[in-house]
Amino acid sequence: MTEKVALIGSGNWGSAVAKIVGTNVKNFTHFDKEVKMWVYEEQVNGQNLTDIINTKHENVKYLPGIKLPENVVACPDLIRTCADATMLVFVVPHQFVVSVCKQLKGNIPDNCKAISLIKGIDVNDHGFRLITDMIQDSLGIRSCVLSGANIATEVAEGRFCETTIGYRNRTDGELFKEIFHTRNFRVNIIEDVIGVELCGALKNIIAVGGGLVDGLKLGANTKAAIIRIGLYEMRKFAQMFYKDVKDETFFESCGVADLITTCAGGRNRKVAEAHVTTGKSFDQLELEMLNGQKLQGTSTAKDMYGILSKKGLCHEFPLMTTIYRICYENLPSIKIVEDI
Amino acid sequence: MTEKVALIGSGNWGSAVAKIVGTNVKNFTHFDKEVKMWVYEEQVNGQNLTDIINTKHENVKYLPGIKLPENVVACPDLIRTCADATMLVFVVPHQFVVSVCKQLKGNIPDNCKAISLIKGIDVNDHGFRLITDMIQDSLGIRSCVLSGANIATEVAEGRFCETTIGYRNRTDGELFKEIFHTRNFRVNIIEDVIGVELCGALKNIIAVGGGLVDGLKLGANTKAAIIRIGLYEMRKFAQMFYKDVKDETFFESCGVADLITTCAGGRNRKVAEAHVTTGKSFDQLELEMLNGQKLQGTSTAKDMYGILSKKGLCHEFPLMTTIYRICYENLPSIKIVEDI
Repeated sequence: MTEKVALIGSGNWGSAVAKIVGTNVKNFTHFDKEVKMWVYEEQVNGQNLTDIINTKHENVKYLPGIKLPENVVACPDLIRTCADATMLVFVVPHQFVVSVCKQLKGNIPDNCKAISLIKGIDVNDHGFRLITDMIQDSLGIRSCVLSGANIATEVAEGRFCETTIGYRNRTDGELFKEIFHTRNFRVNIIEDVIGVELCGALKNIIAVGGGLVDGLKLGANTKAAIIRIGLYEMRKFAQMFYKDVKDETFFESCGVADLITTCAGGRNRKVAEAHVTTGKSFDQLELEMLNGQKLQGTSTAKDMYGILSKKGLCHEFPLMTTIYRICYENLPSIKIVEDI
Repeated sequence: MTEKVALIGSGNWGSAVAKIVGTNVKNFTHFDKEVKMWVYEEQVNGQNLTDIINTKHENVKYLPGIKLPENVVACPDLIRTCADATMLVFVVPHQFVVSVCKQLKGNIPDNCKAISLIKGIDVNDHGFRLITDMIQDSLGIRSCVLSGANIATEVAEGRFCETTIGYRNRTDGELFKEIFHTRNFRVNIIEDVIGVELCGALKNIIAVGGGLVDGLKLGANTKAAIIRIGLYEMRKFAQMFYKDVKDETFFESCGVADLITTCAGGRNRKVAEAHVTTGKSFDQLELEMLNGQKLQGTSTAKDMYGILSKKGLCHEFPLMTTIYRICYENLPSIKIVEDI
């Protein structure tokens, strides 16, 4: 049976991935050679972004300087992009998932399967919901997840790194591995969608902790201790809420490697460091450093704290709880080592 | 029963530990308040180092600026230091273990137990031997091991970090935890002497890999991937040779945290980075950067390669094997990502 891939999303990460997927499908006979990519249409220098991508084969706005394979075809119409696809790659910002799924419902083939490259979880008054669950529940299809230590630009440049695909159905996992795996973008697959997905969301909280320790200039031992305790609490949280989450997942790229990268660089770390060195609030720093965009680490810390406090579990997660309190309750930053 | 602690060694790490142990024994009624510390006698500004330590309460040569508790008593005589001790803390350089044990044999109480704070393993033509095994076999006593992300100076300054004690006998583990654990030096204990000890030895190989990646300027993703693969190979190696080694050990400070610290700083990383940026051999760089001292990472890589190649297992450990080949067989550094 021939598989046909559609990419839903074309930002920085989506475009990096388009380069890989477009190249890989040509290496197998069981893939349709055309990969449609849904692009939220916008004007760049008076031209449609889709037209630019389809003539220059470059996403000049979100991944400038990187050539995309010519078999990647930008399409402004979501339904048309996915109408004949059997493999959907979700790589839109987190807040668009609901609306994308609503539009796709009833408009995709029955044998479709999905993969989410989206980081984050959806929190509401009743608890939280994983992106893969949202996709599965609203479209009635199985969804894998891909997550790892993958800075988009470095991946697009072909620098060596790894990533992890979590699957429920091994055939799905192996199929998605075929379209992503390359010599320099090494894919491991593991039967643990939830564990892989939670790693991608929870690591941002720990990165805030890493930034606080950097700001306090506590040294390499302390930073390593915070990362280790963070990994431990991520695993404990995941396994407390989902008993099937595997220890092994935290040894994969989505676990320890992504956590290391996020605690070494990235905006969560950076803003948290500035919180210590400047004494300014996170709100203020988000305005100054991120043009008012919200940090994922602090908002995820708040979401998690909401869940933990409702269940009376804060004392079991001292690091996440303390990071929340430093961000939202004016606790002095030094409490990151005193209260855990 | 009253326990009495003796410290065997008084270098940088030994002195940092003396500060903690000397303070801790005063907090429990079941410890003798005096902690003897064996000091290899030498002259500092015309005075015996032991006399300086016992009057100034500072190891001016190996840990200047840090006050030691007055109940830590420096002693130049190894036999006398340990004659009435029930808890021996080994913190001498690796190459002195055999001679220390030879001198102590027959001169320590029967109920003695030991802990090794020594990093490294002993390799000979027949394979390798752990330091704890050397202590156990030559003295006929049980030995724990302590290892973690612990830069001596940061520990002495009381900066927050963690460490791991591996034990065979839980009572031993708990007893040693009492003399080491503080608010800022957090001890976890785990029933896995071998796993803890191997982490401390093998991480130095991976740090060489981390330094090569830094020199090649491959970026944060690649570095995180090398650390992750390194952790994976460390675990695989340990569990291949010792089936009881626990997964959990690699989540402890001795595992992931120490590996992160060692790959972020430290001389193995630094010299390997210089190998890439200057093109000079490791031998040359050891002369220039380390006064001719040998790197632990490269020599351990050589030892491990000897074991792996003899058993035909190199292909199962591509990272360690490639690091060895870069260090000793003039393989180009870029092979660190191409050959694994």
